[in-house]
Amino acid sequence: MDIILKQMIEIVKQCGQLILNADRTTMAIDAKEGPANFVTEYDKKVQQQLETELKQIVPDARFIGEEENTNTASNKGKYFIVDPIDGTTNFIKDYHMSCISVALLEDGEVKIGIIYNPYLDEMFWAVKGEGAYCNDRRIHVSEQPLSNGLVLFGASPYNQELHKKSFEMAYDFFSQALDIRRSGSAALDLCSIAAGRAELYFELRLSPWDYAAGSLLVQEAGGIVTTIDGEALCFDRPCSVLAKNR
Amino acid sequence: MDIILKQMIEIVKQCGQLILNADRTTMAIDAKEGPANFVTEYDKKVQQQLETELKQIVPDARFIGEEENTNTASNKGKYFIVDPIDGTTNFIKDYHMSCISVALLEDGEVKIGIIYNPYLDEMFWAVKGEGAYCNDRRIHVSEQPLSNGLVLFGASPYNQELHKKSFEMAYDFFSQALDIRRSGSAALDLCSIAAGRAELYFELRLSPWDYAAGSLLVQEAGGIVTTIDGEALCFDRPCSVLAKNR
Repeated sequence: MDIILKQMIEIVKQCGQLILNADRTTMAIDAKEGPANFVTEYDKKVQQQLETELKQIVPDARFIGEEENTNTASNKGKYFIVDPIDGTTNFIKDYHMSCISVALLEDGEVKIGIIYNPYLDEMFWAVKGEGAYCNDRRIHVSEQPLSNGLVLFGASPYNQELHKKSFEMAYDFFSQALDIRRSGSAALDLCSIAAGRAELYFELRLSPWDYAAGSLLVQEAGGIVTTIDGEALCFDRPCSVLAKNR
Repeated sequence: MDIILKQMIEIVKQCGQLILNADRTTMAIDAKEGPANFVTEYDKKVQQQLETELKQIVPDARFIGEEENTNTASNKGKYFIVDPIDGTTNFIKDYHMSCISVALLEDGEVKIGIIYNPYLDEMFWAVKGEGAYCNDRRIHVSEQPLSNGLVLFGASPYNQELHKKSFEMAYDFFSQALDIRRSGSAALDLCSIAAGRAELYFELRLSPWDYAAGSLLVQEAGGIVTTIDGEALCFDRPCSVLAKNR
């Protein structure tokens, strides 16, 4: 597992250069299904490079990516679940809050989770049962109560019917906490929970590539991650996500 | 003005090292007036270093800092208006979204505005009448309409009576835009508007050190910055802030 992990980290880090060196002035941007849902040529380039290189190190793993997705994960076998650029709107706007998220799933369980923020050169990674790390540093969830905590929220921008409820919940959590943040990257929000930089994160609808890697990071950092209703996350369809310390 | 600008940039950049190298495990944190309002020993250290060094380059300027503030700006004479760490809660949480904000005010007008994000090594600066820059690159506000834009908002965490209205306005703007962000640093939000990374920012109550430098950056980048009611910003007392492209 160690050699695969190291190779995965190296592959993801290389792809970070594609994001940092992107020529934003000429890049192609296409609209996808739903409002505020875009894909750029760099999402596709990063996904392509990840698919080519990840398949070489685990040839029997199937590949599920956010862009041009064809597979669905089942509870049998190995899968890479990949978001080539989580925070695409931020990337388009040059808002410096995007990342690459890669998970290796085996028989329905995330075995390796990697999230890389190229702007801060922060490589978050976790191996099932072996803890969570940022670069070379072990990370843990916060020990602060919510009343002394930061709440992170996703506004489910692609799902208009969830906007109002998202804001009502955000306001409710804000009333119990110090303050609230909205970064626009679910994967980086999960990293913030894992690293103890915030105490609670929720979003009412996400896809597996948004949370597969991050969910392992939160768990291995000592946190809890479930759906809003407290159910286990699934990796074969979208669901809500609630992550927090204990 | 050029020499003073260069000296100010150098002083601010040096202070960024204090933030990056802070020992978060042992730092002293004190509560200030109102909820969620803190000051750390690094806020005080950065302010002290800024005061000492800025006074050397403009000896006839008075100094107004967020921490241990004694002066109030008037419409006569020179003032440095300084926020040593804008985004103190983020700094305490290690959330990597804080900055140093320094403005040089002369006869009630901001002449120089400098905001430094040490995590991304982004130095934003503007001189009245001479444009706005990020590091060596000229910056401009976005040309996108709000419907294709990002909204940034401040939740006025220190002013509980403004929380509900802040969220209602945020939801209303979100309904007209692509998505919404909350960074926790007003000064960095103003930089994002100036750099064309977002289209609208508002907060219902801020203090002059939060927006003095940023207001010049937005204006010199071609944007508009006023109170929520469209009035000119004042630098002698708190007010609301609305910044946008044209």
